[in-house]
Amino acid sequence: MSGSSSHLRPAGAFTDDERAAVYRAIYTRRDVRSQFTQRPVETEVLLRLLTAAHHAPSVGFMQPWNFVVIRSAAVKTEVQQAFDAANAEAIAMFPDDRKPLYSSLKLQGISDAPVNLCITCDRSRGGPVVLGRTHNRDMDLYSTACAVQNLWLAARAEGLGVGWVSILDDATLRHILRLPQAVVPVAYLCVGYVDALYDIPELELRGWGQRLALDDLVYQDRWPATKPVETPSSRIP
Amino acid sequence: MSGSSSHLRPAGAFTDDERAAVYRAIYTRRDVRSQFTQRPVETEVLLRLLTAAHHAPSVGFMQPWNFVVIRSAAVKTEVQQAFDAANAEAIAMFPDDRKPLYSSLKLQGISDAPVNLCITCDRSRGGPVVLGRTHNRDMDLYSTACAVQNLWLAARAEGLGVGWVSILDDATLRHILRLPQAVVPVAYLCVGYVDALYDIPELELRGWGQRLALDDLVYQDRWPATKPVETPSSRIP
Repeated sequence: MSGSSSHLRPAGAFTDDERAAVYRAIYTRRDVRSQFTQRPVETEVLLRLLTAAHHAPSVGFMQPWNFVVIRSAAVKTEVQQAFDAANAEAIAMFPDDRKPLYSSLKLQGISDAPVNLCITCDRSRGGPVVLGRTHNRDMDLYSTACAVQNLWLAARAEGLGVGWVSILDDATLRHILRLPQAVVPVAYLCVGYVDALYDIPELELRGWGQRLALDDLVYQDRWPATKPVETPSSRIP
Repeated sequence: MSGSSSHLRPAGAFTDDERAAVYRAIYTRRDVRSQFTQRPVETEVLLRLLTAAHHAPSVGFMQPWNFVVIRSAAVKTEVQQAFDAANAEAIAMFPDDRKPLYSSLKLQGISDAPVNLCITCDRSRGGPVVLGRTHNRDMDLYSTACAVQNLWLAARAEGLGVGWVSILDDATLRHILRLPQAVVPVAYLCVGYVDALYDIPELELRGWGQRLALDDLVYQDRWPATKPVETPSSRIP
């Protein structure tokens, strides 16, 4: 234990300025579809983002992620076609009164962004029994999503925007990227420099949804027995 | 569109100091089990953490999360018992040569931490069809994991530590917290002030695993056809 305690470091609160910077990243981060510039993303900067992702928490120190960095126009074109096909299916799923607004939304920046990045989760990594994953098999997927968020916040600090493209058929994306069976494509991201970002989420700006009140989302000690007040989003048809 | 463009704000890179603060949060964040102090967590600080979580990206602006803030000793005791039962099951799953080390690890700080927090995902929020979730039903779970990471980094900046307790039986935890069927307990977190943190992950320090080399995890354009070099964690039995 003396060996361990020599690795303890003082860990108080950040200075006010440091803390403000962390919150600035959290609050000004946006899901970017249209604001990418053509400025190339330097390998050095990209590696800083990937290193930030790699330092996410992972269940049992499993580090289940891989990073497929896509700069190839050919691969981007295949993914774009996969998005177009999936999005056509998606439009059909919405009620008629939502279809015009849905169709007007730009939901990806695949060809606009200099870099596309698929962050995957290798569900076989670490062998059949992973510490902390014995009772919840999805912990590795959650770890990978935490890596996405680390990268997203680091990108904001570096002046890059990130957009998460989720309207993709899983089998098609796996085929394009040649992913092994045990590897799940958790996030397909568009990454590039931005000069400007919206001050509120684009879906809020366009009238698709609104920010829920935090007060309605917080409970004390247990889920309340009475049905909570209906939230605005639950009324969206 | 002119209405939208009025919401665009300049969004360049952070200053060097601001960027360093974001990376400091990312690199010094730890999964805390033993370093919690008994200093009470002020409601105001806790609300800052929850607000940071609430500003995570969410698929279709679904905001699927709720926050069950647990200060009740009775609830903590029930969760502690659930952990003890699950962890006894977990130990039995590991090979004999790993059991002594596993048993020596402290894997939760349920009673040590002044605040426990369950971040949940309401899979029914937003109705049956959610933008961006049409082709991947798990996007709401990933959004919730991003909220966890936002909170974790904000906590680091505030001088608080967070530990994620994943060795819990899902049905037992749902029963204790009285979660409705559609609500998934994504993360059960222990939260409290810390004075010190390890400089490397505790599982690395104790010899359970080691940091993988980032180079081995990054691929260009597609997953390579040849089997990648075996990584240290894949050799753990």
